[in-house]
Amino acid sequence: MSTWQTEALKAKTTLQSSIPTQWLLPEDKLPPSDQKNVADFPRASGLLTDRELSITEMSATALVAGMGAGRFSAEEVVVAFLKRAVLGHQLLNFATEFMADKAIARAKELDAYYRRTGKLVGPLHGVPISVKEHIGIKGLTCNGGYVAWVNDIAPEDALILQCLHKAGAIFHVRTNQPQSLMHLCCSNNLTGTTTNPYNRTLTPGGSSGGEGASMGFKCAPLGAPEPGQEAILGVVGPLAAQSLDDLELFQRVVLDAEPWDVETSLVPLPWRRVKENREFTVGIMWDDGTVRPHPPIIRALKAARSKLQAAGIKVVDWDPYKHAHGWDIISKLYFPDTASSQKTLLSQTNEPILPLTEWAFSYAHPTPLSIAEAWALNVARDEYRDEYHARMKAMDVDFILCPAYVGVAPDLYEAQYWNYTAVWNVLDLPAVVFPSGMAVEEGDVGGKEGWVARNEVEEREWRKWWVDPGRFVGAPVGLQMVGGHFKDEETIAAAKVVEEVVRGSEGGRARL
Amino acid sequence: MSTWQTEALKAKTTLQSSIPTQWLLPEDKLPPSDQKNVADFPRASGLLTDRELSITEMSATALVAGMGAGRFSAEEVVVAFLKRAVLGHQLLNFATEFMADKAIARAKELDAYYRRTGKLVGPLHGVPISVKEHIGIKGLTCNGGYVAWVNDIAPEDALILQCLHKAGAIFHVRTNQPQSLMHLCCSNNLTGTTTNPYNRTLTPGGSSGGEGASMGFKCAPLGAPEPGQEAILGVVGPLAAQSLDDLELFQRVVLDAEPWDVETSLVPLPWRRVKENREFTVGIMWDDGTVRPHPPIIRALKAARSKLQAAGIKVVDWDPYKHAHGWDIISKLYFPDTASSQKTLLSQTNEPILPLTEWAFSYAHPTPLSIAEAWALNVARDEYRDEYHARMKAMDVDFILCPAYVGVAPDLYEAQYWNYTAVWNVLDLPAVVFPSGMAVEEGDVGGKEGWVARNEVEEREWRKWWVDPGRFVGAPVGLQMVGGHFKDEETIAAAKVVEEVVRGSEGGRARL
Repeated sequence: MSTWQTEALKAKTTLQSSIPTQWLLPEDKLPPSDQKNVADFPRASGLLTDRELSITEMSATALVAGMGAGRFSAEEVVVAFLKRAVLGHQLLNFATEFMADKAIARAKELDAYYRRTGKLVGPLHGVPISVKEHIGIKGLTCNGGYVAWVNDIAPEDALILQCLHKAGAIFHVRTNQPQSLMHLCCSNNLTGTTTNPYNRTLTPGGSSGGEGASMGFKCAPLGAPEPGQEAILGVVGPLAAQSLDDLELFQRVVLDAEPWDVETSLVPLPWRRVKENREFTVGIMWDDGTVRPHPPIIRALKAARSKLQAAGIKVVDWDPYKHAHGWDIISKLYFPDTASSQKTLLSQTNEPILPLTEWAFSYAHPTPLSIAEAWALNVARDEYRDEYHARMKAMDVDFILCPAYVGVAPDLYEAQYWNYTAVWNVLDLPAVVFPSGMAVEEGDVGGKEGWVARNEVEEREWRKWWVDPGRFVGAPVGLQMVGGHFKDEETIAAAKVVEEVVRGSEGGRARL
Repeated sequence: MSTWQTEALKAKTTLQSSIPTQWLLPEDKLPPSDQKNVADFPRASGLLTDRELSITEMSATALVAGMGAGRFSAEEVVVAFLKRAVLGHQLLNFATEFMADKAIARAKELDAYYRRTGKLVGPLHGVPISVKEHIGIKGLTCNGGYVAWVNDIAPEDALILQCLHKAGAIFHVRTNQPQSLMHLCCSNNLTGTTTNPYNRTLTPGGSSGGEGASMGFKCAPLGAPEPGQEAILGVVGPLAAQSLDDLELFQRVVLDAEPWDVETSLVPLPWRRVKENREFTVGIMWDDGTVRPHPPIIRALKAARSKLQAAGIKVVDWDPYKHAHGWDIISKLYFPDTASSQKTLLSQTNEPILPLTEWAFSYAHPTPLSIAEAWALNVARDEYRDEYHARMKAMDVDFILCPAYVGVAPDLYEAQYWNYTAVWNVLDLPAVVFPSGMAVEEGDVGGKEGWVARNEVEEREWRKWWVDPGRFVGAPVGLQMVGGHFKDEETIAAAKVVEEVVRGSEGGRARL
């Protein structure tokens, strides 16, 4: 066994020894490994009681209300989610470490507090939150997907966790991430590959793929990813399993804790309380000008347009404004030093460089950017932001409804096109992705006749669809709502309205 | 005449041809060129009427109130300040261009509006503002102190000027700046050297030295400097001739205009209205640990301490926390590319590099910083900010009262030590400099006996004092109030209280 394998084994051992074995199902009780969709397995598994099933299908907002009314205890809530998470891990390999004992002990403390005072400790009292591995937890390793960092111990809890903890949250499971954190997929040399609960041949995405799987399988009502850098700031943002209300709750809790009073790089912008309304204009972006989205995405957008219009919401078309230019800026800024710091980390243990890591590194300029070049990119970025903002104002468009990706979840190791999300990062615009309530249907599969790609990238991305579109049938279709600069609060509020309208006439079924 | 001289002549011609000659005093009516202090010359000059003298000695806040009550017109206000500015320019060489006709035309428009509606157009109605040359004004050149840029024409007014204009401000004169903008002095190869109205052998400082002279001579009640960059953000901040109230007014007007709705790199932080109070703790910093301030500064700080204590304001000592480390960070970030972009600009015309430009460039690392090195400095900067912030909180210190410079205004071309101000820039803390009401006295001059420098920098900076301290007698002593991170509003409010207390028992004389 080579050095990197010895080192990587430590991460596997940490994971294995942390799993609460009392809740593991024997192999023969699990669905066959070729069963793609396992999202409904918790009900069939027999592991969770009906009460636990219903607890794990509630939003954080509803859970807190329930605990506040004494309808259930923090302990039973965290146990329910732990059981579901263990099951999810057996099926999806989404965890890097369980923290069951600590989570249960914390839940007991919260319950004691509630019994003693009749009060909740805060707005996230007893809410289990899964946490992406690269967010530091005091005393635990923090490897960020690199074998070289497998022995790094976080000296303290990350500030965002401190804020959530104070509000009453419980951290019960840490989740997987790709090597280098720069894949739209979730695979590394430490704990392997995480898969999508709706179709285990597809990816839950990346870099927060462990969180994606955790939310999709309802291993927690809320999840916490988060990153770094200066020119293109990583986005601190939550994932929610059940409801956009929970995204609002998460953001509110974190910002109400005034984290800028500790980390002075944060701007003291309080979270504003905004009211939902329908007095806004949605611009629908059908295509980003480089890669047209696959047929089910277009179908979902068309359905959304009809429903929004029927609901009296103003809808116009939105032309993508210089999105390729935006990609040009952001892709150069990802690795301004030719990814040499990342490559150095990988070479320290000689761990194999995964194909999607190579792919991401290939965006790096072949020579290190000079400071002057980086500054010029910053200027280009700021000009692009100003222009985009002015354009939205001039067209009177408040929100943009658009694809979240070129298609539904891609095959494992195949996610290569990022610009349906990256462009909002370079533009620094808030974006919310939500399930449309629709999924790929047999009817989406035809229509290859006469189709012509506009460029090589489009050719490549559509080849992945044409090769066998039938394999995506049943995969859920997400849509993305993008709001104005610093209009995070309005964007969540409007996304809630749009999601309700778009999914409303689908028959009132439970939220994904 | 070499190329750079031909080019530089254009700037001189622009300046000369813009001067409203009807207000020029003949040479023989001016004070002798060896008269140092010319601050009181406007009264002696005979150029301004008593009414004009009193107008030019009012704050912007008072002027707007006066115009709102119909006590004087915008036209007479701008004419009064134009006359004073022409005189100031003859004595101090502070202007780069007058805009008299346009300013008077604008004042007439404002007066017509007021006559028609009985209202002011905005909170800066009729207030003349002098503007540092490097802030673009549509159709005018914008050279930033470089001969190479003498033909550059600004395509539009800078956003900050648009905000001020909308609020009713009038721009009547553009002001001088040093070559490369990086001196604590004000000298270039275009329009020469600006001097200090209190002592023309001293500098008004830099890089906003033209503005400093403009304020000191009361050529405008308010002045607008402003810069660029990402790692160390230039500070947008006003200068005021008469009153700290005007600083608040300026900031309020600019931020109430919501400039972030045009320039998306600005954070939407509204200007908060805060009430003055005396419930705060002032930490007095006597020394930054590298260069002790000269005797008159220490005397002013001691007087301030006594008066603050007598006024019931809590005062403690503040130890400088790693200020040399802060300087190390900021000085490396000034010119991360070895100042090559600046040097290229200078070499384009072969204009001579001035000694203080050389001095500033000498801070640059001998080889270009790599992106990784720049990022490491950003991290060090953020850590330093967090530590400093935590320390102020732990010590319960709300504001720091400290020197604004190692001494009073330095001799021309001699300003070399920046860290009594630069450190607040790297720390991103708001700072207000105000006159202490005190000036250098004969009694400050002695005490060399037994004095020992702690290091070479201190040796160098004190040599400038010992060589002939008598030459500074009469020079005003400024002090600096520094507030917490993003506490700009509280800092101005507290500075007003402190200034009032510190100057209060000096006999109630007019400000400055």
